[in-house]
Amino acid sequence: MRTVTVALGSRSYPILIGEGALSKLGRQCTSAALGKRCAVITDTHVGPLFGSSALESLRKSGFDPVQITVPAGEKSKSLDVVSKCYDLMAAHRLERTAFVVALGGGVVGDLAGFVAATYLRGIAFVQVPTTLLAQVDSSVGGKVGVNLKAGKNLVGAFHQPRLVLCDLRTLSTLPDREFRAGLAEVIKYGVIFDAAFFEKLESNLPSLLRKSPKLLAEVVARCCEIKAEVVGQDETETGLRAILNFGHTIGHAIEAVFRYGAYLHGEAISIGQVAAAMLSSRMSTFPAADVERVRRLFEHVGLPTQITLGDSQWKKLEAAMRLDKKVSGGAVKFVLSERLGAASWGHPVPWDRVRAVLCETHGPSRPDPSGKQRLTKLFNSQAIRPQSSRTRRP
Amino acid sequence: MRTVTVALGSRSYPILIGEGALSKLGRQCTSAALGKRCAVITDTHVGPLFGSSALESLRKSGFDPVQITVPAGEKSKSLDVVSKCYDLMAAHRLERTAFVVALGGGVVGDLAGFVAATYLRGIAFVQVPTTLLAQVDSSVGGKVGVNLKAGKNLVGAFHQPRLVLCDLRTLSTLPDREFRAGLAEVIKYGVIFDAAFFEKLESNLPSLLRKSPKLLAEVVARCCEIKAEVVGQDETETGLRAILNFGHTIGHAIEAVFRYGAYLHGEAISIGQVAAAMLSSRMSTFPAADVERVRRLFEHVGLPTQITLGDSQWKKLEAAMRLDKKVSGGAVKFVLSERLGAASWGHPVPWDRVRAVLCETHGPSRPDPSGKQRLTKLFNSQAIRPQSSRTRRP
Repeated sequence: MRTVTVALGSRSYPILIGEGALSKLGRQCTSAALGKRCAVITDTHVGPLFGSSALESLRKSGFDPVQITVPAGEKSKSLDVVSKCYDLMAAHRLERTAFVVALGGGVVGDLAGFVAATYLRGIAFVQVPTTLLAQVDSSVGGKVGVNLKAGKNLVGAFHQPRLVLCDLRTLSTLPDREFRAGLAEVIKYGVIFDAAFFEKLESNLPSLLRKSPKLLAEVVARCCEIKAEVVGQDETETGLRAILNFGHTIGHAIEAVFRYGAYLHGEAISIGQVAAAMLSSRMSTFPAADVERVRRLFEHVGLPTQITLGDSQWKKLEAAMRLDKKVSGGAVKFVLSERLGAASWGHPVPWDRVRAVLCETHGPSRPDPSGKQRLTKLFNSQAIRPQSSRTRRP
Repeated sequence: MRTVTVALGSRSYPILIGEGALSKLGRQCTSAALGKRCAVITDTHVGPLFGSSALESLRKSGFDPVQITVPAGEKSKSLDVVSKCYDLMAAHRLERTAFVVALGGGVVGDLAGFVAATYLRGIAFVQVPTTLLAQVDSSVGGKVGVNLKAGKNLVGAFHQPRLVLCDLRTLSTLPDREFRAGLAEVIKYGVIFDAAFFEKLESNLPSLLRKSPKLLAEVVARCCEIKAEVVGQDETETGLRAILNFGHTIGHAIEAVFRYGAYLHGEAISIGQVAAAMLSSRMSTFPAADVERVRRLFEHVGLPTQITLGDSQWKKLEAAMRLDKKVSGGAVKFVLSERLGAASWGHPVPWDRVRAVLCETHGPSRPDPSGKQRLTKLFNSQAIRPQSSRTRRP
């Protein structure tokens, strides 16, 4: 097994990555000095596949687990489901020393993490992500929460897990569409943080799509390393961590417009990242040729890179973007990339420019020589320049 | 105005205490460098009395407040009401830079604090407690949360306010029963932390019950100082902070049995504290004569010190005590006092002894010479002895 450490002082924790890691869940929970009783929160898809393995491993190590199964799907990321989890945990008399195991994808991790963050004012929790998206992104870093009708992730907390266990074998049962959607977050790390990793993905895509175990282990571990590095520098997103939202402002708004139904998160941020790359080319120094590389990689993965909307949908998209948590003083702030492998945050982008790149007919993107000039103007009108991802926070 | 500081490093904050402090709310929020927009969460009792003063003060200092009014009473400390607050705040487009003002008693403070702790993963909040209980206890220290059907405060967070503003004038409109109930927490500080303060309360009770402004200011400030001292040493209740629960294990259970209807919190912990004093006398070194002083002080305030229960209620009381957050490994742990002005936590007390003190006919408490021996036995069977309130955590 590979181990990546998220360094957060007394709240540091390991991410363990390997084939068959699930069978070591009990032993790892013992190493993490967790209490005896726990709630394994899972969903109706993952529970039947891996619930009994998880419970068996925990029992073998002397833990006393109860399983809580929620309906599969984004709709479970709601206060109603949170409330039902609390009630079940109280009915099982789970005390402060108990912990929560989140066994599932991003929805289960976010939901169960929020339950753990707030039950009895916070108990320990362990992430066992079973989707690619959850393994490379949502299970690491302590962001937990649920959706409101008004928008995604509008309620939540920062609550770091005590342990993350990524069993690569769970990815073999993942529907192909979800695996590809997970690759959208993988590609993101290349674009915003590691150009060599981006190139590796370009060169080895067929092998990755075949889920080659060795390559998959390398890729998941590298993504976790990058996320751990960013989170270690900026746990609560006062700065650098915002670069992880590359493509997400548009992506979240697309999900909201389609009520979390038509697009998977990875599909929505695939469209969002291509748009963000185009904006980066027009408003910063991102090379137009690299916009094409980014678009092509998403296309080769089989992810959508464009969207067609009706008039009322455009209005909803704009409204949803304005409700994004990254809005400040009414201005929608974007993460832009200056070059492959680097990104910076806090760029105000006017709505008409967002709409322009989303509307644009696909094909080789045309460099916009006026873009940089406009960016300079925007910066000069601000007190503080957006910071680079290479800058450590003070 | 008097100022007490809660020292928590970068999260330190002032408690401001004085007559007419509410009119300075806006100015103090400016000093605390809070964002422009805010939600003033209040209830149907307090809103009509002080809502417009609060909003006016905020507007005068350039803030843009919206008022959210919840039904008065413990029932508003529920996930349903939390959910409605989120929806209203999202509808008003409150962003991360916005803050919450909790204007009301303990229910409003706990509810609004939990909303602030979780909306957009946590925004700033200000406590403006308008009851004695909230001013001396619940508004200070960052414990926020709501009730489940299964028990009180079972869901919550630690989220420190940026500022606490105690306007003593708000106490003049407080129903007499609630003012007396608040004195139960005031007396607690004397019992567990400050014998001289206990004596001062004994000597000046008539003047305190008349709400003498000078004495009230002194008393509220001293309670806040003690709470600030305890919270500053142990923010998240890993040790010392537990002494603040003196009388609360029984008190919370009484509230649960009567579904938060028949007894106010202060009344329930009045019974709980007298019982805890009796247990302290039998199982520790607390002088029997001081049990009588404690009982007499509560009685002179007009608070209940005994309870009569039917068979099914005894069973419910035991069940509720076992669900208390302070339960560990199935054993109910108590805070006991060795002498007036000192307390220690983590004492396992068997249910039959709890029932015995609650059943006992009132009158001079009889010292139980066998008590200390039994306590010693209990301690010897434990790896760790309970710690004293004078011990600082490592």
